[in-house]
Amino acid sequence: MLSKAKLKYIRSLELKKNRRAEHVFVAEGPKVVGDMLPYFPCRLLVATDGWHAAHPEAVADEKVNVTEEELTRASFLKTPQEVMAVFGYDDDDVCDTSLPLKELCLALDDVQDPGNLGTIIRLADWFGIRHIFCSPATADAYNPKVVQATMGALARVHLHYTPLPDLLCKLKEQGIPLYGTFLDGEDLYTKSLTANGLIIMGNEGNGISTEVATFVNERLFIPNFPVGEPTSESLNVATATAIICAEFRRRMRGDI
Amino acid sequence: MLSKAKLKYIRSLELKKNRRAEHVFVAEGPKVVGDMLPYFPCRLLVATDGWHAAHPEAVADEKVNVTEEELTRASFLKTPQEVMAVFGYDDDDVCDTSLPLKELCLALDDVQDPGNLGTIIRLADWFGIRHIFCSPATADAYNPKVVQATMGALARVHLHYTPLPDLLCKLKEQGIPLYGTFLDGEDLYTKSLTANGLIIMGNEGNGISTEVATFVNERLFIPNFPVGEPTSESLNVATATAIICAEFRRRMRGDI
Repeated sequence: MLSKAKLKYIRSLELKKNRRAEHVFVAEGPKVVGDMLPYFPCRLLVATDGWHAAHPEAVADEKVNVTEEELTRASFLKTPQEVMAVFGYDDDDVCDTSLPLKELCLALDDVQDPGNLGTIIRLADWFGIRHIFCSPATADAYNPKVVQATMGALARVHLHYTPLPDLLCKLKEQGIPLYGTFLDGEDLYTKSLTANGLIIMGNEGNGISTEVATFVNERLFIPNFPVGEPTSESLNVATATAIICAEFRRRMRGDI
Repeated sequence: MLSKAKLKYIRSLELKKNRRAEHVFVAEGPKVVGDMLPYFPCRLLVATDGWHAAHPEAVADEKVNVTEEELTRASFLKTPQEVMAVFGYDDDDVCDTSLPLKELCLALDDVQDPGNLGTIIRLADWFGIRHIFCSPATADAYNPKVVQATMGALARVHLHYTPLPDLLCKLKEQGIPLYGTFLDGEDLYTKSLTANGLIIMGNEGNGISTEVATFVNERLFIPNFPVGEPTSESLNVATATAIICAEFRRRMRGDI
């Protein structure tokens, strides 16, 4: 049975300040919870008798059996599914600036829509990008909507919330390529691309902020088709990220 | 002043059946309305005195001056902006099956999220894809959310709602390439791609339906990186569409 205190605790995690204070997030449903269990310490595992019986191996600080009705009260989903869990995550305040020296990373400059963030985390996972640096105003990756949208990619892709100008200043001093997309940038397909560095993507409405733009030393443009025809003013940030990451990875292949 | 009858009429257009019955859709805000005015016949133009005064050239069957308060009552947006308009669109029930013979087109097999549909319309516009065939269960492109998300791309990209199996049967008989993305498809980057044909994208949860899949004669796969590593099971449909369209257009360029 789910006590009133536990119900209240779970519901309180809908708010970012409460999640941050506790360094926890909520995942729901057999698929997402199953994806997270091997990667994050499970603080609380709330599930139906059926789910618990089928998963005796699941490790958690505390397990609670609930009815469908109790689960519905606790859930953030319209149609809750068998199980929900509270996971802890590492406090990643210390940000390793050597990562973009060694590998290709992403940076998000105030991407505000949780759906876009979730989509970007999934595609980072697809393209083997293991680290995303996020400005503090970027949507919270531990928002229940993002957790559900990432479908487990959050287990393999690490998010670092940090003010971007400080980070970019250090990276630029080290001569690390800092890529950004601009309407007057260079053609993505003719520009040389590196196997390391940072790809910076901007806010949905405003693009990359003026301050962050001053650090970009490799300006890219996704050419439209046919070149020069009237078209949309911009692409959605997640689709632009997809096209750019795909092209970086295509170039790194030795076989084509 | 906005009469009660007109207010009721505008509000009724939130429902798809009413929009379809009248062959109209609603656009809001100076940017989106401005993008649509040259392309669609305007049935009703509802705006503040300031907007009307600044746009005397705008052509509409009927113009109505309203206060901010009246606009707020009529609007589908949280923060209405100066102007909203009801536009007519052509009844495109007769579907020209020769289009994918001549040029590259898209088909959407039950893409249900209006945000994904809006994003796909914008990127079709970006990549010069002028026709999208949609299964009847695909989200309605004239849904106010999609209209706002497309940012005017709807003016240049034509949507055709039609049962896909009938269409695909005719196209296959003509030997037109029918592309689809599958986890066991061929590497997008090594497969030969054509300048015409149809790229079929599937539903968010289920991918391409079994029936539609039987017509696909060119099976594609977007390779993850590094190949063979554990990763997300799939990409979001809009990001997958972006990567595929970008690669088709890259191959069509003569200069790289």
